[in-house]
Amino acid sequence: MPNSLGHTSRDGYQWTPESGLQAGIPCLGTIQPPTKLAADKSTTVYDVAVIGAGYAGLTAIRDLTTTGHKTILIEARDRIGGRSWSSNIGGYPFEMGGTWVHWTQPFIWRELFRYNLLGDNLEVSMSSEGGINKCAVSMFKDQPQIFLTKEREDEISASALRKLVNVDGQLGRTVIPLPHQALHNKEAVAIYDKMSLADRFAQVEQDLTSLEKNLLEGFLSITCGGQWEDASFFELLRWWALSNWNYSGFMEMGLTYKLRCGQSGLQRCLFDEASASGNLAYSFSTPVASVRDEGGLVEIQGRNGEIFQAKRVICAIPLNVLHTVQFTPALLPLKKQASLEGHANHVVKCHVEVAKPELRSLGSFNYPHGKLTYAFGDGTTPAGNTHLVSFGSSLPGVHLQPEEDIEVTLQAWKELLPDTEEKDLKRIVFHNWHKDEFARGAWEWFKSNQVSKYLDALRTRQGNIFFGSADWAMGWRGFLDGGIEDGQRVAKEVADDLKTKVVTANL
Amino acid sequence: MPNSLGHTSRDGYQWTPESGLQAGIPCLGTIQPPTKLAADKSTTVYDVAVIGAGYAGLTAIRDLTTTGHKTILIEARDRIGGRSWSSNIGGYPFEMGGTWVHWTQPFIWRELFRYNLLGDNLEVSMSSEGGINKCAVSMFKDQPQIFLTKEREDEISASALRKLVNVDGQLGRTVIPLPHQALHNKEAVAIYDKMSLADRFAQVEQDLTSLEKNLLEGFLSITCGGQWEDASFFELLRWWALSNWNYSGFMEMGLTYKLRCGQSGLQRCLFDEASASGNLAYSFSTPVASVRDEGGLVEIQGRNGEIFQAKRVICAIPLNVLHTVQFTPALLPLKKQASLEGHANHVVKCHVEVAKPELRSLGSFNYPHGKLTYAFGDGTTPAGNTHLVSFGSSLPGVHLQPEEDIEVTLQAWKELLPDTEEKDLKRIVFHNWHKDEFARGAWEWFKSNQVSKYLDALRTRQGNIFFGSADWAMGWRGFLDGGIEDGQRVAKEVADDLKTKVVTANL
Repeated sequence: MPNSLGHTSRDGYQWTPESGLQAGIPCLGTIQPPTKLAADKSTTVYDVAVIGAGYAGLTAIRDLTTTGHKTILIEARDRIGGRSWSSNIGGYPFEMGGTWVHWTQPFIWRELFRYNLLGDNLEVSMSSEGGINKCAVSMFKDQPQIFLTKEREDEISASALRKLVNVDGQLGRTVIPLPHQALHNKEAVAIYDKMSLADRFAQVEQDLTSLEKNLLEGFLSITCGGQWEDASFFELLRWWALSNWNYSGFMEMGLTYKLRCGQSGLQRCLFDEASASGNLAYSFSTPVASVRDEGGLVEIQGRNGEIFQAKRVICAIPLNVLHTVQFTPALLPLKKQASLEGHANHVVKCHVEVAKPELRSLGSFNYPHGKLTYAFGDGTTPAGNTHLVSFGSSLPGVHLQPEEDIEVTLQAWKELLPDTEEKDLKRIVFHNWHKDEFARGAWEWFKSNQVSKYLDALRTRQGNIFFGSADWAMGWRGFLDGGIEDGQRVAKEVADDLKTKVVTANL
Repeated sequence: MPNSLGHTSRDGYQWTPESGLQAGIPCLGTIQPPTKLAADKSTTVYDVAVIGAGYAGLTAIRDLTTTGHKTILIEARDRIGGRSWSSNIGGYPFEMGGTWVHWTQPFIWRELFRYNLLGDNLEVSMSSEGGINKCAVSMFKDQPQIFLTKEREDEISASALRKLVNVDGQLGRTVIPLPHQALHNKEAVAIYDKMSLADRFAQVEQDLTSLEKNLLEGFLSITCGGQWEDASFFELLRWWALSNWNYSGFMEMGLTYKLRCGQSGLQRCLFDEASASGNLAYSFSTPVASVRDEGGLVEIQGRNGEIFQAKRVICAIPLNVLHTVQFTPALLPLKKQASLEGHANHVVKCHVEVAKPELRSLGSFNYPHGKLTYAFGDGTTPAGNTHLVSFGSSLPGVHLQPEEDIEVTLQAWKELLPDTEEKDLKRIVFHNWHKDEFARGAWEWFKSNQVSKYLDALRTRQGNIFFGSADWAMGWRGFLDGGIEDGQRVAKEVADDLKTKVVTANL
C-alpha cells in the first residue's frame, strides 16, 4: 500500500478559510508519469484494451495481465478509481465516491483479504459513540431543529423502511429470495421495476408518521440521488435483500465500515499488481473518442488523435457516459438508449472538517429544503476535528453545485450543524459527480423499467467488445463490490474467448 | 461443468437392499488417467508442488498455473475435493462432506460466480415445505418420539442457542465484532477459547428447558462432531458471529443452500481451468511420505518411492494428518503438536434415500442415545424418494462406524424416521471421515485452547514450504469457504515469493 499523499489529481475541490476554493486534491491513485506504452506505439497490438480505470477496469487489468495477456489501460482522468477515490489531506482519507465495505460483499472482501488489507484497516464510519449522540432533524424551513438520539433515529428509520419494503408481508423476501440473483422471481421484477419510489411512497404514505416520512425521504433521496418519480423501487428492494432484509444489515453493510488506507489504497494494489506483471501499458488523461471493431483488430482512438489496437476491448465506461463514445458498428440500440436515458443518481458528495469533536456522533437531516440533505460524523481527523460526510439534494430547485458558489455550500453546512459558527468550519472537500464529464452521475440507481428493459443488453458483448461496470452488475450493483464482480466477469470472458476462437465484429 | 457420473472413487460406501454394502462410489472428481507428468520425470523441477487436492490445494493450483507457474498437484486419493465431494447416484448428487454455500461466504461465492454456477444451480436443502413439516425428537431411550412443527423446532433451538452464546448481553457481538477477524478482541479470545462447550453448557444449563437442552445438544454434537469436554466454545462464537449473530443466519448460511451440480462439479471447474493452462502436472493415488527442504530445491517423496522436486511447496494436508508426513527440517514444534492433538471433529456423514416423499420436510433428533444423532430432509431424488442427510454420534459408546455393521446403521436410521419400515430404505450412502486415513476427522472444530496456542503457528511458512487449509483459515474456518480463502492466501504468498527472492530452508 503506498504511503505518501500521492500526486495532485485534477479531480475534486477543496476549500479552507485560508486558501478559499481550489480545484484538484492529492490522490494516491494519480499515476505519474501518465503513460507507459510499448516502444513502437504505432504497430503494437495489445491482446486487450481496457477503457476505464474504475474497479471494473482495474479488476480486469489485474486478472488479465497476471494471466499473461498484454493489456493496455486507457483512462480519461489522471487517476485510477473512477467513481471511487480517496484523497489524503492532513493524513486523513476523504472518500470522494464509493466508500463503505462489508464482509458480505464477496468480491471486494476477497480483494481486501488478498492484499492483506484487513487487520486494523477497517474503521467504523457512522457511529453513535463519542460525543453528543444526537440526530438533528430540520423538517420545516426556518423552524427549530428536532433532536433525537441516534438510537431513536434508527428506530424511526427502521420502522419507516420496513413499511416501505413490506410488499409481501415478508419484508420483500418472496420478491428477491436470492439477493445476488435478483431476477430469479421474474414476475416480481416486472411488478416492482415498473414502480418508482414515488409510486411506492404513495401506497404507504398513510401508514407513516410525519417524522418517519421525513427521515425516510431524506435518507432515500440521497441514497437514490435522483427524483422520486424516476428512481426504480426495485433497486431499493434489491439493496434491502442484499442487506439480509433488515435495517441493521442495511446500515452495517451500506455505510459502516471504511478503509483506513482509503479506496485509492486498495486500488493501487490492483494497479500495482498488474503493473508488476510486466504486461501492462497505460495511457492516462486519454478520453476515448471512438472504438472501431470492423472484423479484425479493434481500433480505439483518443480525443487527442492517438490510436491503439487490440484484439479485444473491455469497455468499463459508466452507463451515463457510454453514449459519448462513437462505436463502429454502432452500440446495440438498447445499450445506446439506456445510456442516453441514464440512471437516476446525480448526487454530490461533500465533506466538512469541523473543530467540534463532539459532532463525531451527529446525524443531521435537512429535507426537503436543504441543499445538503443528510450528514453524519464519519471520523476524527488527526487534528482532532470531526469529519462529517454529506450528500447534496437532487430535488428540483435545490440541487447543490458546490463549486459554483462556495458560500451556498457553507450555508448548507451551517444549516446541518447545530450551533456551529463559520469559524469552526476548517475545511470542505467535495466531488460534484453530476458535473463530472467522465461520470455524469454518481453510483447507479436505475430509473423505473430500466432493469427489465436494459440490464441484459448492457451485459451483452458486441463482437470483440465486452462491457463491464458496477452499473450493470448482478449482486451489489452500483456498489464497489459490483465493479469488481463485473470486471472479473468480463476479464474471464475475454480470456476464455482469446483461448478458444477468433471472433468477427458481426457475431 | 462435467455432466457424466464420473469414474468410481475408492472413497465412500453405498448400501442397497439388492447389492448390500459396497465400497466405492462414482465421482466427477475422480481423475483418469491418474497421472500427468513432465516427459523427463527425474530431472523436472516444478515451480510449485501442491500436496493435497481439497479446496485449498485446488484454489492454489488454479491461481498458480493460470499465472504461469509450472505446478504439480500430488494427492493421496484417486479424486479431487478432499473432505468435500459429491457422488451422482441415480442422477442425484449426494454430498459426502462439506455441502452448503451462501453469498455471505465471499471466497466460494466468488468462485460460483466466476464459473457461472449460480443461476439455477442453487438448491434449497433443509426446508419446512413439502410433506409433513415435522420435527421428531427422541429424548428418552425406548420412549415415544415427541413431535414439533419445524417452526417450533426453530423457535426452541433459537432460544437455546441465544442463551448459550449470550456471554455479553449482546449475543456475543462484543466478543467478535468483526467475524472475519475473530482474533481482533484478544482478551475475549483468551477467555472463550479456554472454555469448552461443556464448560459453557454448565453455565447456562439452569436456564434451558429440557427440550431446549436436548435439541441444542443434539444439534451441536454433530456440529462440533466431538466431545463436549474437548470442543472449544470460541469456535461456536466465531461461527455465530459469521452468521450475523442470529439463529436464522446460522441456519441459512450453514445448511440451507447446496449445489445442483454437487461440490465435485465446482471442484472440476477449478481443476479443469488449471489443467487447461498447460502448466499443471498431477499425480493421484500418491500419498506423500516425506518432504525435504534443505536449502535448495524441495524434494517430496511418495510412499511408493517416487520423488518430485519443486522450488516451493504448498502443503494442503489436513491438520489431523499433517503429523503423518516426515518433514526435514522437522515441522515447527507447535504445528506438530497441534496435529498430534488433532481437532475435535470425528463425525460420520450418512445419507438415506427413503420411499416416502412426505419426509422431505422432516427433522429428527435422536440424542443422546442414537448412533445417528440428527437427520433432515435434504432433497427429492429423481425417483421421487426423499433424500435425508444425517450425522453420526461422536459420544463415547455410541460412535457410529457404519461400514463395520450396516445392520446397526439401518437400525439407527429406523430410529430417526417415524413409521418407516426397512423396505422403504432404498439406499444408504456414507463417508466415515473418522476412519479415513487421509482426513482422520471431518471439518475443523478446534479443541479448547487450540486457537490461542496453535493458529498462528499453523499459518506460518517454514522455509520453502507454505501451509494452506480450511483448518486454519481466518473467516469461515472449517468451511468450504475457508479452504478457498487459505488456498488463495498461500498461492499469492508463493507467487510473490518466487518473484522477489530466493529463500533458504532455515529462514
